Amino acid sequence: MSDVPAPFRVGLLGHGTVGSAVAGLLPDRADSIAHVTGLRPEISGILTRSRGSFDEILAGSDLIVEVMGGTDVAHDHVTRAIRAGKHVVTANKQLLAEHGEELWALAREHGVQLRFEAAVAGVVPVIRVLQESLTGQHIDRLHGIVNGTTNFILTQMAATGASYADALAEAQRLGYAEADPSDDVSGKDAAAKMAILARLAFDTPVHLSDVPYEGIEHLTAEDIEYARDLDLSLRLIGTAERIGDELAVRVHPAFLYRGHPLAAVEGSFNAVTIESPSITEITLSGPGAGGPQTATAVIGDVISAMIPPAQTPPTRNTLGFVDDVVSSFYLHVDVADRPGVLAQIAQVLGLQGVSIKSVVQKGTGNGARLVLVVHPVLESRFFGAVQMIGSKDFVTAPPRAIRVIDEEFTA
Amino acid sequence: MSDVPAPFRVGLLGHGTVGSAVAGLLPDRADSIAHVTGLRPEISGILTRSRGSFDEILAGSDLIVEVMGGTDVAHDHVTRAIRAGKHVVTANKQLLAEHGEELWALAREHGVQLRFEAAVAGVVPVIRVLQESLTGQHIDRLHGIVNGTTNFILTQMAATGASYADALAEAQRLGYAEADPSDDVSGKDAAAKMAILARLAFDTPVHLSDVPYEGIEHLTAEDIEYARDLDLSLRLIGTAERIGDELAVRVHPAFLYRGHPLAAVEGSFNAVTIESPSITEITLSGPGAGGPQTATAVIGDVISAMIPPAQTPPTRNTLGFVDDVVSSFYLHVDVADRPGVLAQIAQVLGLQGVSIKSVVQKGTGNGARLVLVVHPVLESRFFGAVQMIGSKDFVTAPPRAIRVIDEEFTA
Repeated sequence: MSDVPAPFRVGLLGHGTVGSAVAGLLPDRADSIAHVTGLRPEISGILTRSRGSFDEILAGSDLIVEVMGGTDVAHDHVTRAIRAGKHVVTANKQLLAEHGEELWALAREHGVQLRFEAAVAGVVPVIRVLQESLTGQHIDRLHGIVNGTTNFILTQMAATGASYADALAEAQRLGYAEADPSDDVSGKDAAAKMAILARLAFDTPVHLSDVPYEGIEHLTAEDIEYARDLDLSLRLIGTAERIGDELAVRVHPAFLYRGHPLAAVEGSFNAVTIESPSITEITLSGPGAGGPQTATAVIGDVISAMIPPAQTPPTRNTLGFVDDVVSSFYLHVDVADRPGVLAQIAQVLGLQGVSIKSVVQKGTGNGARLVLVVHPVLESRFFGAVQMIGSKDFVTAPPRAIRVIDEEFTA
Repeated sequence: MSDVPAPFRVGLLGHGTVGSAVAGLLPDRADSIAHVTGLRPEISGILTRSRGSFDEILAGSDLIVEVMGGTDVAHDHVTRAIRAGKHVVTANKQLLAEHGEELWALAREHGVQLRFEAAVAGVVPVIRVLQESLTGQHIDRLHGIVNGTTNFILTQMAATGASYADALAEAQRLGYAEADPSDDVSGKDAAAKMAILARLAFDTPVHLSDVPYEGIEHLTAEDIEYARDLDLSLRLIGTAERIGDELAVRVHPAFLYRGHPLAAVEGSFNAVTIESPSITEITLSGPGAGGPQTATAVIGDVISAMIPPAQTPPTRNTLGFVDDVVSSFYLHVDVADRPGVLAQIAQVLGLQGVSIKSVVQKGTGNGARLVLVVHPVLESRFFGAVQMIGSKDFVTAPPRAIRVIDEEFTA
């Protein structure tokens, strides 16, 4: 690797939510990327609806990022980029669900990469896992929550009892649904994504027109309420499965039993499960949309197209190791049930700066137990308090402390 | 791609659970792999404790798979393979947690790949995602359930109220724990895996000795029982987080609130969450051990070392699409509450071969509602029944049908 890495020129088509996030994040990561690849990425031009020349950007780029959406102009530009021998990274599911075979063949013919992680489930790396980790693997079935808008709406309906219309309005207010949400709520967006996943999983051509879909517009708060009695949660599910020598690829609302890995996927998150005899079942989940998240998927593809990271690069940092950290704790204390015991324990904790989140008391007499959960605190202070509590005469057995990992916890 | 793909010779060191699964699965997948890579993998030799010559295998191989375990002989063989210019795929976490930097540097020096997906969380593709999808990404924190034995034991304790000793004995009986379980239950195995993950996530050297660990041997059924009252579930958690300019990498039991993505990881499964401002949070989960599962991770690495799949290969199949599939359903019927209504609905369902799994009845008079869940059945038969039910005079609104995805469902 030379001291000044050579530039790698990235032309950007589209400057909406994802495009502007790519333009913002790529320069921040240029040094890290140069460390791994030996090349320094730079934005060579941005095409928007009103500004920029595609021909000039194409001529000045090593790779084209297509995040403009739509299937007409995007198809033309992607085709021309591939024919010009440029790698392409796209987030355009409709383009691939309709013209994927033609574009992948063109890319093979011209010896360039056409990468599309961001087209399905945003930063959740399902494309890479299907194409690389599971190359040539016999897959039986995929289930996916691949549309964040509908998952957000269904989660809202379940959490608040809201009607479909109210939950949709809330999603629009918060930016999780577009002004015209029809592609999302009808299941069409999810169907395009399932076409792409099924094509990769089953190594057979699958187009959007092969995927019947049903949306969430007709679902009611009542469906969700009754289903809760049956321990079911409602999601918009894409399914792609092998049935004998045929395929079924579909999108429809479905109830999931609570133990299903997709039942826990809340809000605008996406997730995919992949089933196969030799892998059992893998689940991948994370944000399915969002500017920085989708841009991160795009940039991962750009890096892979720059140079496949065949080796583990040398480390750049030599970070030290922390010797005391902040944790939340569960504390179990067996006590003689005498007046003032809890007060004394609370006082010791307070002296050490440990604050109590919840307490459960069980039993009476010498078999009484206090179970506390405390707010995050430096571990050394907490263990100091535990030692002091353990030495009290009303404590009948060594206190038991176990860390608690909290969603809201921040160090 | 020529008609007869050239061979790619894979030498196998170790023939235990994982080694024999690799030897069994690789020939089955050789055609698929040749389709993608243009090379046909074949096992060129197997080294066991009693049979085979390492020197001969090395000379006759393009790539060495090391699944023998241990750090002495494995270190010698991996080092010699790299020096001989062979790619290496290893599942050996202890080797990498102790000697990773040296081996990665040696691989760079000799221009070969050293891949190790199977060393952490089996077939869960966390290494590939950290090294490829998230190359150079600023990561704040990882949480991992990276030891299946301990997760199985803790899940058993929670499900059955068993003591630690009884749950361990059950795990041993079922093959989830070894006769000497100390590396697993002490947290040492998880610590080695967290050292590898932290090294990749934070781009800084991390060795096993940098990772303090605490096991599960001291946990009691009572801890789990009380915690349930507080909506907490107990797991052995590996944490690697950036705190200012320092790192904290640790393994210890911890309670998770129910909403945490790792709280739903049951049995011997593994899972890792990766947090970063630009990706929010990705979770990857699946089987962390098992012969075929771990072998699948090894084979994914072998393929990547053969030739990075830079392109989406042409499809090999042209599967047809099924027009009727088997599904389980939720059915909501508004009825006039008259004697015999449920019997008539059950009769119609029975005629169509639809069998009822559960029924909830709510309300009385003309506002009565039946909510049923039915066992899997061909959709055409089910919708036939729904149409017949909808035409009954006691039905006061169109019936509502929504699919149910069941853990046990099989087509």
